[in-house]
Amino acid sequence: MPSQPGRLLYAQSGGVTAVINATAAGVIEAARAKGVQVYAARNGILGALREDLIDTSRESKAAIAALRHTPGGAFGSCRYKLKSLEANRAEYERLIEVLRAHDIRWFLYNGGNDSADTALKISQLGKAMGYDIRCIGVPKTVDNDLAVTDCCPGFGSVAKYTAVSVLEASLDVASMADTSTKVFILEVMGRHAGWIAAAAGLAGDGPDAPPHVILFPENAFDEGAFLAKVKATVERVGWCTVVASEGVRDAAGHFLAEGGTRDAFGHAQLGGAAAVLAQLVKDRLDYKVHWALPDYLQRSARHLASATDVLQAYAVGRAAVEFALAGMNAVMPVIVRTSESPYRWKIEPAELRKIANREKKLPKGFIRRDGFGITAAARRYLSPLVRGEAPPPYGKDGLPAYASLRNMAVARRLPAFP
Amino acid sequence: MPSQPGRLLYAQSGGVTAVINATAAGVIEAARAKGVQVYAARNGILGALREDLIDTSRESKAAIAALRHTPGGAFGSCRYKLKSLEANRAEYERLIEVLRAHDIRWFLYNGGNDSADTALKISQLGKAMGYDIRCIGVPKTVDNDLAVTDCCPGFGSVAKYTAVSVLEASLDVASMADTSTKVFILEVMGRHAGWIAAAAGLAGDGPDAPPHVILFPENAFDEGAFLAKVKATVERVGWCTVVASEGVRDAAGHFLAEGGTRDAFGHAQLGGAAAVLAQLVKDRLDYKVHWALPDYLQRSARHLASATDVLQAYAVGRAAVEFALAGMNAVMPVIVRTSESPYRWKIEPAELRKIANREKKLPKGFIRRDGFGITAAARRYLSPLVRGEAPPPYGKDGLPAYASLRNMAVARRLPAFP
Repeated sequence: MPSQPGRLLYAQSGGVTAVINATAAGVIEAARAKGVQVYAARNGILGALREDLIDTSRESKAAIAALRHTPGGAFGSCRYKLKSLEANRAEYERLIEVLRAHDIRWFLYNGGNDSADTALKISQLGKAMGYDIRCIGVPKTVDNDLAVTDCCPGFGSVAKYTAVSVLEASLDVASMADTSTKVFILEVMGRHAGWIAAAAGLAGDGPDAPPHVILFPENAFDEGAFLAKVKATVERVGWCTVVASEGVRDAAGHFLAEGGTRDAFGHAQLGGAAAVLAQLVKDRLDYKVHWALPDYLQRSARHLASATDVLQAYAVGRAAVEFALAGMNAVMPVIVRTSESPYRWKIEPAELRKIANREKKLPKGFIRRDGFGITAAARRYLSPLVRGEAPPPYGKDGLPAYASLRNMAVARRLPAFP
Repeated sequence: MPSQPGRLLYAQSGGVTAVINATAAGVIEAARAKGVQVYAARNGILGALREDLIDTSRESKAAIAALRHTPGGAFGSCRYKLKSLEANRAEYERLIEVLRAHDIRWFLYNGGNDSADTALKISQLGKAMGYDIRCIGVPKTVDNDLAVTDCCPGFGSVAKYTAVSVLEASLDVASMADTSTKVFILEVMGRHAGWIAAAAGLAGDGPDAPPHVILFPENAFDEGAFLAKVKATVERVGWCTVVASEGVRDAAGHFLAEGGTRDAFGHAQLGGAAAVLAQLVKDRLDYKVHWALPDYLQRSARHLASATDVLQAYAVGRAAVEFALAGMNAVMPVIVRTSESPYRWKIEPAELRKIANREKKLPKGFIRRDGFGITAAARRYLSPLVRGEAPPPYGKDGLPAYASLRNMAVARRLPAFP
């Protein structure tokens, strides 16, 4: 039973990952150890606005421990960006009201740069409204695009999934290329930054190893150069594996995925860059082509998580609680790389205002000069993040034994929010 | 060094799997133990026609053992169906000529029902041409559609991959559905038979568990019933996971994937059923929808192989050698289920003529009456096939340590085949 006065509120925000629940486990276990009761907001910040709170102290120790190996967001997440303080002060005031009604003294918001901004604003408004609340941003995003932190929990696992998938599918394509598919295209997430596409480069090294072509959102798509590279690869190697970021754009800045592909009704076709590229390769080069779009499979593949990522996700959760209880405010526990070889890291607090609403793109020095691959510097950065395996326990049925929480609601104390 | 006179030729055929190399390991290890030299045909039967043979005795013991955990086809496979004996007798005679030139007395053809037919024909022609050759078909196909055998090596692993992917992606969708994607569609392989789609059903049981809708190629697609089921699921559960076989067809027998989706040039759009279904859900129900097409990822995912499948793949390879060396001809080692609970199986020889060119569809009793799910009988059949984990070893770089063979060519003894 909680022995400390005041409660801690934890919320998950934005796209979920294979390891965001490991962060939740870190938060809850660290808070329990200090005698602090943890509420979770159902469906992210919306749960806080709606006063739809979950009492995590109703969950068993085993259930919380199992979050470490369970993908998805155990308390629900949301895509909901609070407007600015000027545009919708009522929402922020409601949040403070809910926090006050439940004696919540620490608020931990687990998300990306939007969420860092929200946590920052709440901390500021709390001060202005005379309610003492400590707000901590907790990093999470498969996109790896948060400023300050060396890497983002969630990225290492999608990076590992992507590299392994490229390796495996390439072995398949290599063995069939003589009479079947010669070009395989894998479309990966990353609308604005090519971190996941870059991670595919870990599948192999050298000119003949897959992936032979990576298309980054950072580079304008050059159709001629792309086709020439694919053709040269097929002629030299016998086959070609392409990894395309969903965010690949032409020189005019239009997503390739919006490049005029329409269905019979004239609607823009759902789906993306890989379909467009496959059609291009087929039409222009007349090679048999296959493509894959793993979509949510890539960010929920807890069965193939990186052990480094799981460890870091858990550690930022614990650190967030320590920082909060130590009285820190408007900070985020970030990962600092203290050594590259051997890989060593530690966690430090960083100011939210240096992280909120910023985006870290792939450095220019990580993309090879020809634009179709990664550099040795990128390999040195990426490699430690996919290291180590942390498979979930499997049941007798051959499926991972993922946690399912009870998610018991806390009784409401306020009228509904309009 | 080989101590037996005569050699054994092994060839891989058709689409490769996560475990076809485990069969190769079984073949080579069993033959080595008997002092028999194994040649492999490069790129399947084409290697035999071209006299492009690989001497597997040049590979180390460790390399052969590593085939057990390496996906793809280590010697190359092909999509090449020999014409009938009447239509192209020259090809069959060339095969016998190559076998004779290299003193090959046993031919093991690792593939599906086409390959069983080829092996059968070669055995018949050998007899007619006075060349004593023992032909054994070795089962392999992710489609699980071979007659006689209880299941096909390769299927259990893609089944496990599919069930785990549905489970993981559904946890993701469930946590975001309040404000984001409400319908997730996974397209799986299976052009003619819904075995893989059925395996997705192992991800959950009961009306609220995913997958909520499975679309089988065995049932004509009913747009109205499908949309009603998706809508009812979203309204009751909050979200809906759909698994669609690539072979889903309308009542007129046309693949959904060919349903009029064209690109800007008027070409039929590559890709498939999931894209069409996603557009339908978006247009008619106005739900946010995401879809995934794992394509080759599903059949090459050795990292998530079923231990049962790996064991059976290896065992059919060993049995094929035992049957061949015992003088059997025109047979296939098939898997016989001797007990369901506990699951027990054994391997027996079955006549190739009972397997060649036949196709085993999903039994009617495996599809639920409403057409959108699997029955308890299907669960009893499928469940043991995905049991057990058999992860590959991983390197320090965090990637699976897959084997790479030297594949040294055997010197040619014949003129080139036109």
